[in-house]
Formats: sequence, C-alpha cells, structure tokens
Amino acid sequence: MAQNIVTLQETLVTLVQNKKYAVIKEVLATMEPSDIAPIFDDLTEQEVPILFRLLSKDTAAETFVEMDPDNQELLIKSFSDTELKQIVDDLYVDDAVDIIEDMPSNVVKRILKQAHPEVRKQINEILKYPEDSAGSVMTTEFVSLKESMTVSEAFDVIRNTGVDKETIYTCYVRKDNKLAGIVSAKDLMLAKDPKTKIKDLMDCNVISINVHDDQENAAKMIKQYDLMALPVVDNENFIVGIITFDDIMDVLEEEATEDMAIMAAVTPPEKTYLHSSPFEVFLQRIPWLMILMVSSTFTALIINHFESALAAQVVLTAFIPMLMGTGGNSGSQSSVTIIRSLSLGELELNDLPKVILKELLISALCGLALAAACFGKIMLIDRLLMNNDAITISVAMVVSLSMFITVIFAKLIGGVLPIIAKKLGADPAVMSAPFITTIVDAMSLVFFFKVASSVLF
Amino acid sequence: MAQNIVTLQETLVTLVQNKKYAVIKEVLATMEPSDIAPIFDDLTEQEVPILFRLLSKDTAAETFVEMDPDNQELLIKSFSDTELKQIVDDLYVDDAVDIIEDMPSNVVKRILKQAHPEVRKQINEILKYPEDSAGSVMTTEFVSLKESMTVSEAFDVIRNTGVDKETIYTCYVRKDNKLAGIVSAKDLMLAKDPKTKIKDLMDCNVISINVHDDQENAAKMIKQYDLMALPVVDNENFIVGIITFDDIMDVLEEEATEDMAIMAAVTPPEKTYLHSSPFEVFLQRIPWLMILMVSSTFTALIINHFESALAAQVVLTAFIPMLMGTGGNSGSQSSVTIIRSLSLGELELNDLPKVILKELLISALCGLALAAACFGKIMLIDRLLMNNDAITISVAMVVSLSMFITVIFAKLIGGVLPIIAKKLGADPAVMSAPFITTIVDAMSLVFFFKVASSVLF
Repeated sequence: MAQNIVTLQETLVTLVQNKKYAVIKEVLATMEPSDIAPIFDDLTEQEVPILFRLLSKDTAAETFVEMDPDNQELLIKSFSDTELKQIVDDLYVDDAVDIIEDMPSNVVKRILKQAHPEVRKQINEILKYPEDSAGSVMTTEFVSLKESMTVSEAFDVIRNTGVDKETIYTCYVRKDNKLAGIVSAKDLMLAKDPKTKIKDLMDCNVISINVHDDQENAAKMIKQYDLMALPVVDNENFIVGIITFDDIMDVLEEEATEDMAIMAAVTPPEKTYLHSSPFEVFLQRIPWLMILMVSSTFTALIINHFESALAAQVVLTAFIPMLMGTGGNSGSQSSVTIIRSLSLGELELNDLPKVILKELLISALCGLALAAACFGKIMLIDRLLMNNDAITISVAMVVSLSMFITVIFAKLIGGVLPIIAKKLGADPAVMSAPFITTIVDAMSLVFFFKVASSVLF
Repeated sequence: MAQNIVTLQETLVTLVQNKKYAVIKEVLATMEPSDIAPIFDDLTEQEVPILFRLLSKDTAAETFVEMDPDNQELLIKSFSDTELKQIVDDLYVDDAVDIIEDMPSNVVKRILKQAHPEVRKQINEILKYPEDSAGSVMTTEFVSLKESMTVSEAFDVIRNTGVDKETIYTCYVRKDNKLAGIVSAKDLMLAKDPKTKIKDLMDCNVISINVHDDQENAAKMIKQYDLMALPVVDNENFIVGIITFDDIMDVLEEEATEDMAIMAAVTPPEKTYLHSSPFEVFLQRIPWLMILMVSSTFTALIINHFESALAAQVVLTAFIPMLMGTGGNSGSQSSVTIIRSLSLGELELNDLPKVILKELLISALCGLALAAACFGKIMLIDRLLMNNDAITISVAMVVSLSMFITVIFAKLIGGVLPIIAKKLGADPAVMSAPFITTIVDAMSLVFFFKVASSVLF
C-alpha cells in the first residue's frame, strides 16, 4: 500500500476521534472502498457504525465487502432492518455469500430475512456448493441473451438489466436453458449493422467449467485462456453462473499462500497473520511440529545404533550437521521446484520418468561439486588451518563420499515424492522441506555410518 | 490441463507425422491457441513450420504468442519476410515485446525491420523500460477519448479503432495529453442519452501507476481495486500505456513462483523445469548449496568446541538431530508466514513490534508444548521402552529445556529477519528455511551444550 494512503487512513482515525464529520465526508468521497475498509480496524466499537454512516450510498456496500468479518458482524448487529436490507440489496450475490460464510448463524438468518426473495434464492443456490468448488465462487448475475435477438435488442437487454450484473462484457446465449454460445460486448459494439443476429455473431466454442469442479481448475482456465469470465454449468450443460477474473485473482493468491503454508508445515490459515490470535497461530503450527519431532526419533535410533562407532571416532560427529543440512537443502530445492511446476500445470503425472532422469543428472552434478568442495574444505580448513590431526584423508573421503550419496538420494526423493503424493490424490505440497528433511536426515546418517564403517573400522 | 485435451494434442502429433493435413485443419479449428501451442514441443524442426502454416489466419498470431521461445525462433527463421510482417502486425505490442526479449539480436533486427513503423516505435518505447517495471509489461494500445466528445462520438472512436486495442472496456480521457479521467464501456452502454458528454460521465479519481514503478505494485493495485486495466503515466502524468488484468495474473504467479524458489534457496528460473537443461537447473541450485554448506562449518566448530563434553556423554548426540530439526521447522514456519504476509501487503514494516510480541507468545506456547512432549517421550520411549539407562531425568530435563529455548529463539529469528531484510531493501524471501535453519542449527547446539554443561557436568 502506498505510504500516502496509510497517512490518509491514520488521519481519518484521528478525525473520527475528534468528531470532525464534515471533513471526514469530504475525504471519504475521494477514496477507494478497499482503502477505506482497513480504517475500521483501528476504531472502537462505538466509532465503527459512525464512520460507516458517513459513507456515500454508492461506496457503502463496496466498502462493507472489503471489511474484516469482525467489523462486518459488528455493523450488521448495529443496523436497523431497513439499513441491512439496503446493503444486502446493493451487494453482488457472490460477495453476499462470502460474507455470510463468515457469520454466525443468527446473523445469517437476519441477513437472509432482509434479502429480496430473488436474491435469497440465489444466495441459497451458491451456498449449497462445497467450499473450494467452482460453484462456491461463482455469481448468478450475468447477462443472458437469445440466439434470435439482434445486436440492438441485445443492447436493450444490457441497458435494462446491466446495472446489477457483475460483468456485461461477456454475454451468454442460452437455447433451451443450455449454454449455446458467448458474445462479447466488443463484438456487439464493433458490429456494423445493429440488425445483425446474435446467432451470427456468437462464438459456439465455449470454454466452461462444471459447477462441482475445483475452483483451482477455474483459476487455471481463466488464466490460460485469458478470460474475463468463465461460465459455470451443471451436468446437463445448463448455465448456472459465471466466475469473474477478479475473484480468480484472489483464488490464485490463496492457493499460492496455501501451498507455501503447507510447504513450511503450517496448517493454511483462514485469517491474515495480524488478524489471528497467538493461540490460533499456535494451533496452526503445533501439530506439525509434534509429528516432525516424533519422527526425528528414527534419526536418534540410528545414532544410538552406531553409538559405539561414534564414541571411537568422535571427530565424525562434527560432520553430521553439514551432511544433514546439505542433504535437506538439496531435497527441498527439488521438491519445491516440482511442487510448483505441478500446481502451475507445467508438469503432469506421466512426466515422472523425465523427472527421475533429470534429477539424477542434476544431483550427480551437484553431488560431485559438493563432494569436491567438501573434500577441499575438510583438508584445507579443518585439517591444515584448524590443525586437527584426527582428520585424516580417510575421514575426508568418508565425508565426501557420504555427501555425494546423500545429495543424489535427497534430490531423487525430493523430485519423486510430490508426484507420487499427487498420484495418490494427496496434496503434493505436503512432500516439502520438513517432511523431506526428516527422511533425508535419517538416510544421510545411515549412508554416513555405512561408508564410515566400511572405510574406517 | 484436462485429460481430453492432452489426448487431442497427442493425436495431432501423430496426424502431423502421417501428413493428414486436411484432418489437422479441421481439428485445429475447434481448438484454443493456448492448447495448440504445446503441440509444437513434440514436433521435429521440419514439422513445426508445416503445422504452423495449417493454422487459420486468426489463430496463427495468438498461437505464436503462446509458443516456447525456441519454437518461435525456429519459426521466425523459416518465415519469409511477408509471413513475418503478417504475424508481427497481428500481435499486440506487449506480446511482441515479450517475444523480442527472448530472441537473439539478429532475429530482433529482422522482426523490427518487418514491423510497421508505428508498431516499431511502440515496441522500442516499451523496450526501453527496465525489466520488472510497470513500463515493461504495459501495452501502448488503448482507447483514447476527449472530454468534449459525446457518447455516440465515443462509440464511433471505439468502432473505428477498437479492433486493434487490447481492451476497449476502459477508455482513457486525455486533456492536453494528461490523463483527466476514465470512462468504462459499461458507462457508455448504459448511458440513456447518446448526446451525453464524456466530461459528465467520466470518473476523475483515476488510479494510475508510474511507468518506472515495480510491476509487483501494478499487480497489487489491479488486485486490490479489481481493475480490468491500470493506466501507466510518466512523471508529467502523461498516459503512456495500460496494463491489463490478464498480464497481471501472469505477474502474480511469477512473483509467487519466484518467492517459493528463493525460499527453497534456488535462483528463480527463467524457463519451466521441463524446458531447462539439467546443467541450467544445476546452476540455479549449486551456489546456494555451496554457501549453506560452508556456513554449516560454524555448527561443526561448535561441536568440536564441546567435543570432550560429548565424548563423556555420547547419549546427548542422539538428541542433536531432534533439537536442530524442531528448531529449524519452528523457524521456517514463522519466516514463511511473515514473508508471505509482507508480499501480500498484509504486513507493513512498522508492524515489527507487533510481530515480535506475537511470535514471543506463539513460541512460548509451542515451546512449552514441545518441551513437555519431548520430556514425556524421552522418559517413556527412550528410557523405559528402549531400556536405555544412560538417559536420566537430568538428561531429559536438559533436552527439554534446550528445546524450549531453541523454539523461542527460532520463531523470533524467523519472524524478525524477513522484516529486517525488507527494511534493508533486500528480498525478505531470502530469510527463509535454509538460511534460518543454518542459524538455528548453530544456536540450538550452543543452547544445548550450555544447558548441558550447567546441569550435567
């Protein structure tokens, strides 16, 4: 957010505290709804409704949509029935659904009661689709045309109904309720003859998505085909709604945020970091830390198993963190690359053999480079510079060879596990750094002790 | 990508190999350009131009844009001057620039030579802005209106020039070349009176971005304000171009991919995984592995320093991986959460005190829970179940207390370092798992040995 907007927001908080309502109204009139919404976070429960009532009728609903759920709930409770009806009728149906999903049930009942019967029906329609489905992010407000209409009749339809539609730039042509084609506003505007039939103008190769499909697929389609809106159809190819590009941008960011959270072993949060309580964040993090802690018991078991060997060659202990660290880093490099490629659709499940071959080559190159560097470092720094006589050429060779084997293993595991997870229907992002590291930690120790015992003992 | 499209693509490759050109033409006519483009990856150098010439005039340029740079270069080399001119004239200016940026200089010269002088001027205009600037992703083709025009005059302008514009849905009103306001096609279409002046219809509160600003800011603005296009202005507020939402979706994904790569200590790749050679991927990964390997020397130094203590209590060694692992996981949970919040603009630099306080509380909760679980696990599993007498209550207490301190330290470091990096002008994503883990590894050992030496020795 630009610094001057932050300053403006802070100024408004002060103005509210000093009750300068006339000035506030003037300042608000120059601002965008999404810049106004964050101001409510810094107001008291008494001040929130006061500032909201200073908004112009046009901005009120749009600002309401952008607000934090806690403030939305606070406002709804302070609204009279008339005020609530006004706001609900001004909302786009998909925005109303988003708000309702965050409200407690008594508030939801009040909202639905105040909504226009037609709007209520549409809200209920969307609410019945599962979270993350295409149906759950669609809106039911779109421009619907008939094949037999002319361009000028289409313009009339748009003029009469367009104000309430989320987009008028893509119009949907229905035939017996089925989706027969699409016409863009551009086609209509560029049409030379206003008597041209929609039938002759429309594009029948329509890209659509099933209402039960994952919203992630909707996002991919909108992105791949550069669509402004994607029609949503049911199993009979009846058009039930559309998904617009602006909602998809949010989906794209949400999915990336979710992937990043899972990659770092955090349960994907519902709210932003600043809006979550420390206890909520604790709950997102602790289960994974516990699981990973317990699974590191394997590593401890391996060390215990080789305890006598270690006691004889304590010098080896000092190389364990470097081996495990480099192994972990090598593996997570591969896994993140593969996870992201899978989620962008650049990589398919049947690319597994290609990935194995490529990671083998990459890991051989990385393994050789690291082993050589490691050998040089041990002989020059650890032995010569630090003057540690316990470090022999044999020790350096054991460490370097273990490094080579660990890197190859780590990169293979990191590259392959996300694809296997996806094949099994799990989220590939689970197979990221923390999980890979736990496996690589254990295996690198096994390699290390095996190599050491065959060379040194 | 849907499975049936993949099948269709594979069928087309076979059809090309069997020279079934008539069938190919029919199939291509039903397909989208972005589904056709990947087919070229599976063809030989001889087949690429053959398939391309089977595309209809309408689809050719759009498909060309979606193709892999290697295939674009191959095609340009096989084009006659007339064919090249045709394609270049059919491209949107910003797409032409994207293609040019991936071509060797002799190919660039040929493209610019064939381009229409006006197009050439526009391409050169965009090419002069630095990579990742708003100017570099804009297009110079937009609809420009005057305040004094009427709605019906505006429609005439759109009808006459609109075909070549990337969007006609937002029109830009210029006064003395400066950006005075915007009018949407929706406003024009819904206007009751065709004689309404643009002046009375336009919105003067225009959100715009400076041509030298970062493209990431353009993405944030388009997303925050749900814009279809964002006007780009120079220092004198002259409008020089627009950025459309579809290009911004690519920017959003690119930025997320870049962040994920940096978080996993990989140099962000220019090409997709499958299109990169193993050696290219090796170069993206090896520098970071080397740096992290060398920095793990500190950990080795610490272990060496406490070597005698370790030799006396070898049982402690077995807990090192669990301590370091849990510390690293705790730290990367915090750092990834903070890095993502910073990049989505949910968190600002001046939120640092809030983050410190919150991470202190979260880490105290996590630390307590983990220390308790760890104590229980050691006493029940390691001591009772495994029957290891070397593990005393003192050992369990040392490990648990070290765990508590490590988790608090790790979460604070993980939460704070990304913000400090951003304050210093660096990319916060650098302060992620691999880097945090290296610090936490070293510090957790120091805590462990300090606690151990004060309790056990």
